[in-house]
Amino acid sequence: MEDSVNWLTAEEQHAWRNFVRLHERLIGRLAHLLQADSRLAAPDFAVLVHLTDVPEGRRRYQDLARALEWEKSRMSHHITRMIGRGLVVREDCPEDGRGAFAVITEKGREAIEAAAPLHVRAVRSLFLDHVTAAELRTLAEVSVRVVEKLDEDG
Amino acid sequence: MEDSVNWLTAEEQHAWRNFVRLHERLIGRLAHLLQADSRLAAPDFAVLVHLTDVPEGRRRYQDLARALEWEKSRMSHHITRMIGRGLVVREDCPEDGRGAFAVITEKGREAIEAAAPLHVRAVRSLFLDHVTAAELRTLAEVSVRVVEKLDEDG
Repeated sequence: MEDSVNWLTAEEQHAWRNFVRLHERLIGRLAHLLQADSRLAAPDFAVLVHLTDVPEGRRRYQDLARALEWEKSRMSHHITRMIGRGLVVREDCPEDGRGAFAVITEKGREAIEAAAPLHVRAVRSLFLDHVTAAELRTLAEVSVRVVEKLDEDG
Repeated sequence: MEDSVNWLTAEEQHAWRNFVRLHERLIGRLAHLLQADSRLAAPDFAVLVHLTDVPEGRRRYQDLARALEWEKSRMSHHITRMIGRGLVVREDCPEDGRGAFAVITEKGREAIEAAAPLHVRAVRSLFLDHVTAAELRTLAEVSVRVVEKLDEDG
């Protein structure tokens, strides 16, 4: 069985390891900055971004969980905490069986708007300032292609 | 204050959002596969990879936390759980004040070796199969450069 493994080449290993390392560092650093300077933790920010992206700022728990690749139970617990802080409310939907919605509140919109300038500055100084326009295009193309592929398969 | 924000252009926004989405999807999917088919959760795998990378498989808690960008308390709790499962042991170092080491055990080595073929297949099918060699080189270059930059600043 193990004989059939197509092990990574040195180049593939190098690229993959550094790509993972980039992500660990970048997302970790961004989370520290966000949490230090705003009242949003990175997971709050991620949920609110996904809510401000859609009409009326409302999305089913299960769709949020799928979008962020979280377990449903993690999403449910996290939204309960965000409800407690007034950032979202829960909207039940008794007429269908597909589960409740999370809806961003006015306070949630204020929180993400307040964090946005900080977030943009951090994304620039930690990442965009060190990447050329051509590299960024390549990165976007690869990202879009692989996400589409993962969504098809998932 | 907000007037001075250099907001992201449409291209930057597109690239950044998709890059983050790629990571959420890819790491999430990889974690699901690993957890379903081996007995290692993704954080276990990450810690063990960082331990097999160094001589004697031993590394200070604080160095592991820095490498993975975890809070020290999170690393400490996680290693305690891994100790309970026999994957690592703790080695205290009374003569210096820089804290304890985590050391990979034989069982830890067996666990990561057993998970490795599965991990490689997943990395190929989820990611490498959809990226050209030239794109991979660009990705590696960007990753190395940005990680170096983040390490200098951090």
